[in-house]
Amino acid sequence: MANQWPGLIEAYRPFLPVSESTPVVTLQEGNTPLIPVPTIAREIGRGVKVFVKYDGLNPTGSFKDRGMTMAISKAKEAGAKAVICASTGNTSASAAAYARRAEMRAFVVIPDGYVALGKLAQALLYGAEVIAIEGNFDDSLKIVRAMAEEYPVTLVNSVNPFRLEGQKTAAFEIVDALGDAPDWLCIPVGNAGNISAYWMGFCQYQQQGKCTHLPRMMGFQAAGSAPLICGEPIGDPQTLATAIRIGNPANWEKAIAVQKASEGEFNPVTDEEILAAYRLLAGSEGIFCEPASAASVAGLLKVKDRVPDNATVACVLTGNGLKDPDCAITHSENEVYAGIKPDLAKVAKVMGF
Amino acid sequence: MANQWPGLIEAYRPFLPVSESTPVVTLQEGNTPLIPVPTIAREIGRGVKVFVKYDGLNPTGSFKDRGMTMAISKAKEAGAKAVICASTGNTSASAAAYARRAEMRAFVVIPDGYVALGKLAQALLYGAEVIAIEGNFDDSLKIVRAMAEEYPVTLVNSVNPFRLEGQKTAAFEIVDALGDAPDWLCIPVGNAGNISAYWMGFCQYQQQGKCTHLPRMMGFQAAGSAPLICGEPIGDPQTLATAIRIGNPANWEKAIAVQKASEGEFNPVTDEEILAAYRLLAGSEGIFCEPASAASVAGLLKVKDRVPDNATVACVLTGNGLKDPDCAITHSENEVYAGIKPDLAKVAKVMGF
Repeated sequence: MANQWPGLIEAYRPFLPVSESTPVVTLQEGNTPLIPVPTIAREIGRGVKVFVKYDGLNPTGSFKDRGMTMAISKAKEAGAKAVICASTGNTSASAAAYARRAEMRAFVVIPDGYVALGKLAQALLYGAEVIAIEGNFDDSLKIVRAMAEEYPVTLVNSVNPFRLEGQKTAAFEIVDALGDAPDWLCIPVGNAGNISAYWMGFCQYQQQGKCTHLPRMMGFQAAGSAPLICGEPIGDPQTLATAIRIGNPANWEKAIAVQKASEGEFNPVTDEEILAAYRLLAGSEGIFCEPASAASVAGLLKVKDRVPDNATVACVLTGNGLKDPDCAITHSENEVYAGIKPDLAKVAKVMGF
Repeated sequence: MANQWPGLIEAYRPFLPVSESTPVVTLQEGNTPLIPVPTIAREIGRGVKVFVKYDGLNPTGSFKDRGMTMAISKAKEAGAKAVICASTGNTSASAAAYARRAEMRAFVVIPDGYVALGKLAQALLYGAEVIAIEGNFDDSLKIVRAMAEEYPVTLVNSVNPFRLEGQKTAAFEIVDALGDAPDWLCIPVGNAGNISAYWMGFCQYQQQGKCTHLPRMMGFQAAGSAPLICGEPIGDPQTLATAIRIGNPANWEKAIAVQKASEGEFNPVTDEEILAAYRLLAGSEGIFCEPASAASVAGLLKVKDRVPDNATVACVLTGNGLKDPDCAITHSENEVYAGIKPDLAKVAKVMGF
């Protein structure tokens, strides 16, 4: 089309493992806004500029679409008729949307009795076929891996290598928007795939001369679910930021390598700090993200005294706040003034006039 | 920034009533995908090309952001410290997000006891101050109009003329993407503001030589809430498509004028037809929209035999499906296979292998 973002595979084709014969399965994902957040920048001061990469505006509402356009396109290229994943959240929704668009079946395996139907509503509407097995999440993962080995169904969980290839394009977009890499990249860390993907992207872009330096990669984990900070897997991770409630990250070694190579850090943020950032983003900047996404901003504010003067910081917001309406209902601190008489003077008084 | 969509005011500044002194309040709204929907095109056949304009990917999840960036920027320019609207849905969320970003207060007036808190969760998190009055929705409208007349607070309901100015940019984007206007524009009609705004946009673009023709404007109303088709206001409109459940459209005359000038039509679609299109969009195209949005696709399929051969059709999807998770839970027809033993052969059998 004449003048329209074509989706990230076409936009970044030379940087991705696709060929002319790869069928591109796209919902025109990517090209998400990098939005200045002046209130948060003011809290840091010293000339620091802060932006959020609002990846919740991808087609299914999360950054997972970046990886899924690649994973599903490559599965289609290989002749797959079905894909499978173990996921209760953003991955299952994204997998189902792209698989159905590609006329493939999408199977989602979950632990029976563990997941509320509401979390799966989006995936179900997209046409996911959900299989609830007796067992826990690890059992679900084992089943999907075994199914993908024994049957003609492609695994699209995060171990699928094309997922990170797609996700790295978010780093490209940040560099394209800023004209160079940011000084810091703040990012929520759960399975540690996304921090690895961003680093791949920044390094590849630097090799191509698209940016002059690499950012310090600042990863933030929920305090109750912080294996990379504790240095060992967490058996029973706890946080309301469900998208990063992962006790044993699949990309553990990659994440440590990124931290070392970028002179970055992993730091914990409490659920209270996450919620404060979640409310601040919505109530002062007009940006509604998933609780887990707010960990990047909560983390930045926690270590703000260490941001260099005049630095440019990008914080990654991985998912749309509309994914978790219950959190908004429970944690909004704003008031409803009820039972007011429909009288101009009375309403004016409530409004403080 | 180097290479980034700046929001619709900067993108279309020559076409909008703004000046250098207008403070631009933006969340980088607009620039939403125009996505081909091949399954729907196949149902029509005869070389017809069908696209959906997925405006649910705006920052607060609906097309209202297009109007609100204009309304709030102009309110800020005029020195307003607060805005007010009567709305229980997308308008209140959008107004709150943009007002708070502009450091203004955002008041939302609703009928007491009539609106579930969940519908307001997004607006509340953005920092809306909600005033629930004794009375009905008409009383709420009267109060906000009177407040805006008597007190220093700007009305941002749809009577605010800058709203339609912002909304018309969606027509610009469609023309920019296709290289010309579509032959048909299919659009859900509630208050009839959006169909009027699109028509303004197409006409303005044609005058500037950006498109060679104008589309037929095909408006669709829910059968239980179809005043433009019945020819008189509906006292108690009924449809599950809440965003277009409006018995007496504010832009009635404008809408009739658009229909005549474009040789367009208004047609009704039943809730069943809306739900069928809602499921088809998600399950076959990977696109999750609000039920009201699906009225445009339901309508197109209803009158498909009258689409000219080889025509290009654009259907407007006004809101994100994540706005209404209950509808997805209630109306997904897909199944969950529960209580399956974690055994490879058993799972394979469920999957049909």
